[in-house]
Amino acid sequence: MTEPQIIADLLRQFGSQQQRGKRGSVTLGIGDDAALLRVGTARLVWTIDCSVEDIHFRRDWLSLSEIGYRATQAAVSDIAAMGATPLAMLANLAAPGSFARREIGQIAKGQARAARELRCPVVGGNLTRAAALSVTTTVLGALQGAGRAPLLRSGAKVGDELWLLGRVGLARAGLLSLQSGARSRSRALTSCVAAWRRPQALIKQGQSLIGRAHAAIDVSDGLAEDAGRIATASRVKLVIDQRGLLRALPKTLHDAARALPEGALDLALIGGEDYALLATGPRAKRPKGAAVIGEVAKGNGVVVRNNGRERPLSARGFDHFR
Amino acid sequence: MTEPQIIADLLRQFGSQQQRGKRGSVTLGIGDDAALLRVGTARLVWTIDCSVEDIHFRRDWLSLSEIGYRATQAAVSDIAAMGATPLAMLANLAAPGSFARREIGQIAKGQARAARELRCPVVGGNLTRAAALSVTTTVLGALQGAGRAPLLRSGAKVGDELWLLGRVGLARAGLLSLQSGARSRSRALTSCVAAWRRPQALIKQGQSLIGRAHAAIDVSDGLAEDAGRIATASRVKLVIDQRGLLRALPKTLHDAARALPEGALDLALIGGEDYALLATGPRAKRPKGAAVIGEVAKGNGVVVRNNGRERPLSARGFDHFR
Repeated sequence: MTEPQIIADLLRQFGSQQQRGKRGSVTLGIGDDAALLRVGTARLVWTIDCSVEDIHFRRDWLSLSEIGYRATQAAVSDIAAMGATPLAMLANLAAPGSFARREIGQIAKGQARAARELRCPVVGGNLTRAAALSVTTTVLGALQGAGRAPLLRSGAKVGDELWLLGRVGLARAGLLSLQSGARSRSRALTSCVAAWRRPQALIKQGQSLIGRAHAAIDVSDGLAEDAGRIATASRVKLVIDQRGLLRALPKTLHDAARALPEGALDLALIGGEDYALLATGPRAKRPKGAAVIGEVAKGNGVVVRNNGRERPLSARGFDHFR
Repeated sequence: MTEPQIIADLLRQFGSQQQRGKRGSVTLGIGDDAALLRVGTARLVWTIDCSVEDIHFRRDWLSLSEIGYRATQAAVSDIAAMGATPLAMLANLAAPGSFARREIGQIAKGQARAARELRCPVVGGNLTRAAALSVTTTVLGALQGAGRAPLLRSGAKVGDELWLLGRVGLARAGLLSLQSGARSRSRALTSCVAAWRRPQALIKQGQSLIGRAHAAIDVSDGLAEDAGRIATASRVKLVIDQRGLLRALPKTLHDAARALPEGALDLALIGGEDYALLATGPRAKRPKGAAVIGEVAKGNGVVVRNNGRERPLSARGFDHFR
């Protein structure tokens, strides 16, 4: 059983309802980074995301404050990927019975810090007991500028450039280092651990894509996997140019890779959780700060091109239900 | 450590941010049933709620479909308590790795059924693996009618009547019966188990209170506890009239109580999860279907009055962090 199959099931289950939302108008439902709703004059973008102990993090890898911070940035990233502006969020905190006021306060401190940085206040939430710690965050955003369309996964066009905004691979390098239990780390690996612990939702970069990109997604499950989602939704082939991608990777990643079992290219292709943005669009509209790492072609799936040869890429990113 | 203390902490942590939400205007944040936001012309009501295995339910007490149904109705109840109209929802499903496509589909089936009944489509969500099953639901609603104020916990006025809409105590009676492991049940207890398994968010009743009630809350943690929340938020005393309350209880509850260790009055005062609405308002504006179960007086806390004597009521409802 894979996640796409389950999502297809859920689409069947919930899909017929989406057309009936007569009170608010549902422009886009299940299957993209966020749902789109029109209520009065407001064009809303809405998402929910969850961070679970021992699935998404281990408590010895993050302080409680970092758990709150990281969950919040990750949730807001879906709003960034639509090119929208985050407005506010609600958080559900499920905490073990052993958690005292102080511990809950620490998590909230991290959430509050991320909320402040993102200018997206926490306006409410829910507290519950649970065996495992988890933070579930729902974020509302708005699309600004009347005629502007949001960035979906489904708009990529043959001939588009493939753009990367932000960094990829660092978070995975940091995660591998944490998993290895290493006590001392090179400066590069220390940066990578920090990248995994304190990701940043790229709101401004997402907004810079509006009116320019044809499709976008945030890289939460890995470049390979998330590129595959654009390819599937847009019914095109995404060609990643190996040299272009390698050029786009920061020196830190190349340095960090030396002490890891995976090379920089694999870290970049497999590694999620950096919350970079991947987009496609016409060359003439490429925004500042976007690295060209490939192009959109006829066909389907994702390939890596190197020296004129194309190697198909299977999604090796993180699939919670594989 | 109690839930009110933690909520006070969170208010301090997040409270200063709420005034700064310049992009959307946050009218009301932490501390009521739902947050209020104004975005463009839309007046939104927004809530998040979570249902966790072995905390809120046991899997041998509910079918998977009922788990989805119940979590959905419970979440929408907070929207009902504000007198708002639910628009759409997102759901986060955290499921054990052992869950297959079929099991997830069963939960979704229950969610879809509740969504259909409530005319509030599921427009997206998130799937994750977790050791324990949980369903987290976020619901957006809208306040309709331009000048109409939402129903808060804080508006109760001395001299108001105390109104009950819907039934209380049945869900607790059903829960006690499930906990007892009884194999056969009286007809009354069977109804109570059904009330616990398939609660209904009272949307129309909530809307009927707009322009009439001064304060409202949904009874999720028990009449005693939730009445206490209105009393605290409104800085008044809530006087529950014992005879009035007993008169308002359905015959089923009196019948069911015969086979239980708690009497009908206790079941009604302690029992949450029926999602009745408790409101206060002037006699002249009492809506149809509201039972008068007491009044609002000067002072603080909640008392039960019987034969002219007042007995203070401590909140014995469900407090997840006590």
